[in-house]
Amino acid sequence: MFYHRKDQLLFPVSVSNPDPHFAVLLMEQLAGQNGEVAAGLQYVLQGLKCKDPEVKDLLLDIGMEELNHMEMLIQAINLLSEGQVSTETSEEYALQLLGGGGAIWLNSVGTPFCGSYVDTVGDLVADLQSNIAAEFRAKAVYERLHRQATDPKIKEMLEFLISREEAHAAMFRRALEKLMQREEGIRSDFADTQYAQQYYNFSQP
Amino acid sequence: MFYHRKDQLLFPVSVSNPDPHFAVLLMEQLAGQNGEVAAGLQYVLQGLKCKDPEVKDLLLDIGMEELNHMEMLIQAINLLSEGQVSTETSEEYALQLLGGGGAIWLNSVGTPFCGSYVDTVGDLVADLQSNIAAEFRAKAVYERLHRQATDPKIKEMLEFLISREEAHAAMFRRALEKLMQREEGIRSDFADTQYAQQYYNFSQP
Amino acid sequence: MFYHRKDQLLFPVSVSNPDPHFAVLLMEQLAGQNGEVAAGLQYVLQGLKCKDPEVKDLLLDIGMEELNHMEMLIQAINLLSEGQVSTETSEEYALQLLGGGGAIWLNSVGTPFCGSYVDTVGDLVADLQSNIAAEFRAKAVYERLHRQATDPKIKEMLEFLISREEAHAAMFRRALEKLMQREEGIRSDFADTQYAQQYYNFSQP
Amino acid sequence: MFYHRKDQLLFPVSVSNPDPHFAVLLMEQLAGQNGEVAAGLQYVLQGLKCKDPEVKDLLLDIGMEELNHMEMLIQAINLLSEGQVSTETSEEYALQLLGGGGAIWLNSVGTPFCGSYVDTVGDLVADLQSNIAAEFRAKAVYERLHRQATDPKIKEMLEFLISREEAHAAMFRRALEKLMQREEGIRSDFADTQYAQQYYNFSQP
Amino acid sequence: MFYHRKDQLLFPVSVSNPDPHFAVLLMEQLAGQNGEVAAGLQYVLQGLKCKDPEVKDLLLDIGMEELNHMEMLIQAINLLSEGQVSTETSEEYALQLLGGGGAIWLNSVGTPFCGSYVDTVGDLVADLQSNIAAEFRAKAVYERLHRQATDPKIKEMLEFLISREEAHAAMFRRALEKLMQREEGIRSDFADTQYAQQYYNFSQP
Amino acid sequence: MFYHRKDQLLFPVSVSNPDPHFAVLLMEQLAGQNGEVAAGLQYVLQGLKCKDPEVKDLLLDIGMEELNHMEMLIQAINLLSEGQVSTETSEEYALQLLGGGGAIWLNSVGTPFCGSYVDTVGDLVADLQSNIAAEFRAKAVYERLHRQATDPKIKEMLEFLISREEAHAAMFRRALEKLMQREEGIRSDFADTQYAQQYYNFSQP
Repeated sequence: MFYHRKDQLLFPVSVSNPDPHFAVLLMEQLAGQNGEVAAGLQYVLQGLKCKDPEVKDLLLDIGMEELNHMEMLIQAINLLSEGQVSTETSEEYALQLLGGGGAIWLNSVGTPFCGSYVDTVGDLVADLQSNIAAEFRAKAVYERLHRQATDPKIKEMLEFLISREEAHAAMFRRALEKLMQREEGIRSDFADTQYAQQYYNFSQP
Repeated sequence: MFYHRKDQLLFPVSVSNPDPHFAVLLMEQLAGQNGEVAAGLQYVLQGLKCKDPEVKDLLLDIGMEELNHMEMLIQAINLLSEGQVSTETSEEYALQLLGGGGAIWLNSVGTPFCGSYVDTVGDLVADLQSNIAAEFRAKAVYERLHRQATDPKIKEMLEFLISREEAHAAMFRRALEKLMQREEGIRSDFADTQYAQQYYNFSQP
Repeated sequence: MFYHRKDQLLFPVSVSNPDPHFAVLLMEQLAGQNGEVAAGLQYVLQGLKCKDPEVKDLLLDIGMEELNHMEMLIQAINLLSEGQVSTETSEEYALQLLGGGGAIWLNSVGTPFCGSYVDTVGDLVADLQSNIAAEFRAKAVYERLHRQATDPKIKEMLEFLISREEAHAAMFRRALEKLMQREEGIRSDFADTQYAQQYYNFSQP
Repeated sequence: MFYHRKDQLLFPVSVSNPDPHFAVLLMEQLAGQNGEVAAGLQYVLQGLKCKDPEVKDLLLDIGMEELNHMEMLIQAINLLSEGQVSTETSEEYALQLLGGGGAIWLNSVGTPFCGSYVDTVGDLVADLQSNIAAEFRAKAVYERLHRQATDPKIKEMLEFLISREEAHAAMFRRALEKLMQREEGIRSDFADTQYAQQYYNFSQP
Repeated sequence: MFYHRKDQLLFPVSVSNPDPHFAVLLMEQLAGQNGEVAAGLQYVLQGLKCKDPEVKDLLLDIGMEELNHMEMLIQAINLLSEGQVSTETSEEYALQLLGGGGAIWLNSVGTPFCGSYVDTVGDLVADLQSNIAAEFRAKAVYERLHRQATDPKIKEMLEFLISREEAHAAMFRRALEKLMQREEGIRSDFADTQYAQQYYNFSQP
Repeated sequence: MFYHRKDQLLFPVSVSNPDPHFAVLLMEQLAGQNGEVAAGLQYVLQGLKCKDPEVKDLLLDIGMEELNHMEMLIQAINLLSEGQVSTETSEEYALQLLGGGGAIWLNSVGTPFCGSYVDTVGDLVADLQSNIAAEFRAKAVYERLHRQATDPKIKEMLEFLISREEAHAAMFRRALEKLMQREEGIRSDFADTQYAQQYYNFSQP
């Protein structure tokens, strides 16, 4: 069962000045392909299905943390955009037109969040691989946001988020390695046919 | 901040027999246009932005409850589909091919969840109207699922969900009525022009 | 059966100067989530199915009026954008690249119109609730456009449209109230179970 | 300006028996990629922008006729599906779950109508080519529906629609030929460079 | 079977200066509705199914050429955007945030490539019509890009592409004319009913 | 530059009997989220941008091989579906209605291919992680198709494809390990902050 505490936030979020331009960029990690909603829905879904108690625990803890990152980003986007009417890009207008000056479920170029951002096939080994990849992509996008951020408070928040995505990748990696030793699931018959040993050279020279 | 308890479920979920056909139908309310993810993301987003403490509280409480309904549906879909390979419809296959026999973020006809299912414009009066409408639509779909359900345990779960959507609609209604008395926001200038009094008859006779 | 008169427009549309920037913003209400195509397709579909003659008439009249608003917006967008090559935002380019300087079926951030913008479940009470909510959202977006408009002719057009959305909301409200008195459909069993009386407090304090 | 007559239908629509299975197939031509909404929105948009009075007239007449086909299909789908709860395919359920037993804006496999089904670039020659192609595709799909139809009343309706798409293709073809003689627009510099005369052989033998 | 040569490019691609703004515009023809991926996937799919050896050859040759155009555009977009952090539009940021400064599968306004951009119904006459229309639309968009381009090297590349789309249209036209003489497929029963001869006047005066 | 050989296929494809039902399932791996078009477009895009000659070679070779798998699947789907009119599921009809009895760019539940299936952020380490994950997911789906296949010729084709996805995963893994030793890119600052060492326990007990 899910609960919420209104008086807590995983990491303090504040901004020096409103900046609807940067608010739009942050929406990429709120509702984009490598964003927090996608990650949260991916891990929670996997966690609720998972039968391995240790991995289930990991998936649900990290899934919940991504929802807590989501809350931080919504807070940041609201602070950066509210009360501001920016006209620089169409997406900034959209924050006004559609969101009334607050976060909405669009990415940084105005595409709505899509359920197919979630990469999961219900096989634990494949899913952990997908999770590691998702964390690496999220980290890469956060690092680019960090490079473009100028507000020290936003930079600090992004540093926290980058560190956490790193931590998640490392945790998923350890869980995957444990699982691989047990030789279960998709892993068990890996590389056991003649075709699996071949290399086809289709792009020359 | 969001928390989760693995040992609690808002309402007990069990099934008499696996039934991947009905599992697919339930996915409509998990990830469809009037489903629980859409409702949860709608109310949580509104709640985190809302400045009226009473309405904020209402939005976050109901938003969290929708996520708890989501958890119930994932549990039900997993129980109904796991270990079963059904071939009746393409969507049942999809539960196997894509979900490995568990819930995925598709609706009952295989369309991925979409961020534009969320109806919100950041104006409290308009948003509460949208929430009431969302609850009525959800109730209508749940009632149709209830009519087609044969498993008494699933029927009981659906009755609970129908009652709760009714309750939410009533709560949103009361909050809206309070707000309307204060004549704020979108409501304040309602019906004050000549054009607002006209009726155009475009479809005859 | 549908007819069209080339020599009539519901409300006169003209512009003081071309303004491709504002043209893009108007596309939100042409082809966006709360726009005129969505509203027109929603009410016409409901109207053609509706068996209550009075409500059917209302749905088709308002549905046709939304198509007439659509025609006004296409006219306005064409006047604002044609002959202009603007480079301020990607969406303005798109009006050139894709539309050749005229309206296209994209919203203000370049997302194509989507059939799931239409909220309808084929239950008259739920559908009227959805229609009222759609009118409130449309009004909210038009009011924001009005605040950003500088051309007095465009402002006048937007005032007309705002008034009409208000009028529609009021008409749908009256139709809903009549229907609710008859205790039919989704309404009839409202709030009649133990669960419907409970309040769950998931977000504290 | 658009008008509607409730007492008229372009061609009489009736069905021998309910058949929700065929209703779903017809939805392909209501809201699918080559369906009537796509065609109607394509031609009306082009017509409202077109400055050549003769072509404008043609585009708006045919655009309106596609909306009248749309009305016929909605009528047919409602008659075929209402009062029936079919369980054969997920899409038939969807007509119940989502549409309450009536037409909805999905195609035959449950994908919502999409604005990018409309092929238009605001160049009259290119647009007429796109319109001819759209009519050919629509005719092809209607012919396949006709082959699978068993109800003589539905077959008759489909024959009418097939004939009309043929007629539209021929009308657009004649308009295009007239335009091509005037050597305007995209056509004027056709095939005038060295590269335009070459043939590249990339797939051998 | 598909092959690739790393040391060849259909036409030399270079740029005078980085220009992430124009890079975004070019993405319209990479991954947009009338772009090269859409064209390549359309013709290759048709070609692999086609049983007429001459038309099959044509479809596969042109399909492969569109993939070679795709390669040119990726090269151009990478050269125009890499090493640059532009902040003018949200879409330019997206090239950085999502693509790390290189091409991605989005169009010029940030919408992901969509399989329904491909217009094909598996009837050779209808498909060739769709292909001609696709070439005309692609040519129209390339001509607009050409008008906005300032870099002479990019202009030259666009001139090549415009010429090739013209050439493709002419080739598809000749193939269609041959096929039409044989009176097969969708063409054979064209315009043979009373309804096919009528003109409905729905838009007056 | 891309070439094609009509007289070659990476692996011989034949079917014992038409089976439009299985044809639809195979479409999941043609145009679905973990399918061959997604993989081909992902690796080719990465390869054309990559500056490391060894990894570039790997990406383009495997990218081309995925396109060759795509060709095999199109061939298989065409053989399984052509000449057959199946009525079991809506998606089988769609193969007829939309594809005329051949492959189309939809997945097994009728959703069009989407550019956001491609997971790439333009960082080599993150991209190789995404590629490994993509291969694991593809392998998982192919194994499920293999379990449901009854035609020995199709089973053999699927075994080949499973082996190849395994091989690709192993090759990407080796390339990633090499890269990680060089401590470049996203990898270099991994796990170096206090936050990266913490574990948050959000789901209890």
